[in-house]
Amino acid sequence: MFENSDRTNLNELGEFGLIDHLTQSIQLTQKSTVKGIGDDAAVLDFANKKTLISTDLLLENVHFDLRYVPLKHLGYKAIQVNLSDIYAMNGIASQVTISIGLSSKFPLEAVEEIYEGALLACQNYNVDLVGGDTSTSQQGLVLSVTSIGYADTDAIAYRSGAQEGDLICVSGDLGGAYVGLQLLEREKQIFLENPNIQPDLEGKDYIIERQLKPEARKDIVELLASLDIKPHAMIDVSDGLASEILHICKASNVGCKLYEEKIPLDPMTYETAREFGLDPTVCALSGGEDYELLFTVPQSDYDKVKNQMEITVIGHITEAAAGYQLISKSGNVHDIKAQGWNAFKSEE
Amino acid sequence: MFENSDRTNLNELGEFGLIDHLTQSIQLTQKSTVKGIGDDAAVLDFANKKTLISTDLLLENVHFDLRYVPLKHLGYKAIQVNLSDIYAMNGIASQVTISIGLSSKFPLEAVEEIYEGALLACQNYNVDLVGGDTSTSQQGLVLSVTSIGYADTDAIAYRSGAQEGDLICVSGDLGGAYVGLQLLEREKQIFLENPNIQPDLEGKDYIIERQLKPEARKDIVELLASLDIKPHAMIDVSDGLASEILHICKASNVGCKLYEEKIPLDPMTYETAREFGLDPTVCALSGGEDYELLFTVPQSDYDKVKNQMEITVIGHITEAAAGYQLISKSGNVHDIKAQGWNAFKSEE
Repeated sequence: MFENSDRTNLNELGEFGLIDHLTQSIQLTQKSTVKGIGDDAAVLDFANKKTLISTDLLLENVHFDLRYVPLKHLGYKAIQVNLSDIYAMNGIASQVTISIGLSSKFPLEAVEEIYEGALLACQNYNVDLVGGDTSTSQQGLVLSVTSIGYADTDAIAYRSGAQEGDLICVSGDLGGAYVGLQLLEREKQIFLENPNIQPDLEGKDYIIERQLKPEARKDIVELLASLDIKPHAMIDVSDGLASEILHICKASNVGCKLYEEKIPLDPMTYETAREFGLDPTVCALSGGEDYELLFTVPQSDYDKVKNQMEITVIGHITEAAAGYQLISKSGNVHDIKAQGWNAFKSEE
Repeated sequence: MFENSDRTNLNELGEFGLIDHLTQSIQLTQKSTVKGIGDDAAVLDFANKKTLISTDLLLENVHFDLRYVPLKHLGYKAIQVNLSDIYAMNGIASQVTISIGLSSKFPLEAVEEIYEGALLACQNYNVDLVGGDTSTSQQGLVLSVTSIGYADTDAIAYRSGAQEGDLICVSGDLGGAYVGLQLLEREKQIFLENPNIQPDLEGKDYIIERQLKPEARKDIVELLASLDIKPHAMIDVSDGLASEILHICKASNVGCKLYEEKIPLDPMTYETAREFGLDPTVCALSGGEDYELLFTVPQSDYDKVKNQMEITVIGHITEAAAGYQLISKSGNVHDIKAQGWNAFKSEE
């Protein structure tokens, strides 16, 4: 990936040199950032708002495969995945920290690319990068991101707020990131068997982007505010629709009824899933990594959401005793079970 | 370390099962914690205080060696190291998040021990554990801790606030953690050569504890407040006194004069350093991991600090042009250079 002549050895810079180098171009834009990188801790001012904190760990060969994930995309995605958790509280993300552990065999240019992607994500989402840590790693590439945001007390949407009769809504479309991953995995296998064959991803941009360069749904949080909708409950779709709706139902002590025909699927997701012999609905239910927002709103908000292009009503909240139901296109009733991605699942 | 009969396989629990298991005993005690673990993000309320954030990445065989670091101590130290950054802002830590990546070859009991140590640190320091992430790691053990705290705007002590004439103060004593590490490394080598020889650490408890179970100096932040002292500048000693005083001087655009004879050394640190043929002063200057607080106060505070057992005045701040000087016991003047631990240093 990096020619020898382009390589700058990390050892030459040292830890402080590296931090200075990487952070010199960072510009702070958030009013709530009092002090960013350069002291023992960042200093933030959220005045009379609540502070929101979330953190994620991303490990090579567990969460990403450098054989098809470009480093810049990795940096971008690491930030998006974490911002998504703040939006999932119906809050606004304002700062992030990013820690990077990497083998000293990586050249400086590799860290720069990760940082470049991370900073682009920060810029696109109006977030300040205010801290982090860099270290050598004897293992693989390690990324840890913490995101910080804020919300008015009344605006915060917990998983536990869903009420019987609420409409279940989801933003965007589902399953694309998972189908994109299948495509990248297939091309990787072909490449490993014959390195002369170039990957054939033509016309598949959308689902490849869903996997490699997800966009957290800040716009939905803003849209809901502009529609004067306070979601009763909210979560982001990182492990698949099934796993997430169960989180909401269990935290809220309610049941749900989802309609398969309502689940939003992009045509490319649908077609490509079929090519792989996969059920597109299963990809949406169990695929994960879509980073859409799943939320419930009172029925009285139906008129506000029904004509929103980016929001689909896919079912409603029921009493707990009714269980967790998926009504198939043919009218059959299925129990919803979480089969999302499990970070401790044995490798087959 | 773990007999097979005592092992619980992480795969049996799955990620959510593991999180539930680990977090079930967590009690929240901080008024500022509105919502801890269990949603997309933690929710905190700092009312009209400033929010402080710091994060650290700890990687196996870079920051710790499991051949002599017990897992419970590792969890304890991971939290302390991070809390120290909040105290170094003259703030009070109130929450932490901890992310753990570990090979599925580790049994559940291993994660429990790390958590147990982390929770003990939280309990001892009045801090709530409010979030984190757990994941399998295909390589070694990975820990990432983020600490969150608060301070009144006027109380925050940046690195950049030192003024000419300020007294340079340090808490506790220095060099012990480094000398303790030498001792542990020596016993490891002996053990590797002959596993029948038990480690000989008798009478060395203090410096072993300095390395394995450091205590962040919350008490100093509280002491300074009770003495009505607002430090002009402050930093914690993680990379050695030399590196830290240079950080303060460069950020504040000032010089310094330190007196070797004033640098506080515990007698056991001194003796053991000598046994290893090391200069005890060099251990204090370049050793690191002491997690003491280094700070400057105006000369007018001299009467307040002079009789404090836990605070030593080791020099004063000069104009920038005077440089960074160490006056040796024999009266010679040396330039202070940072030779602290470098996370990107090549392994010898």
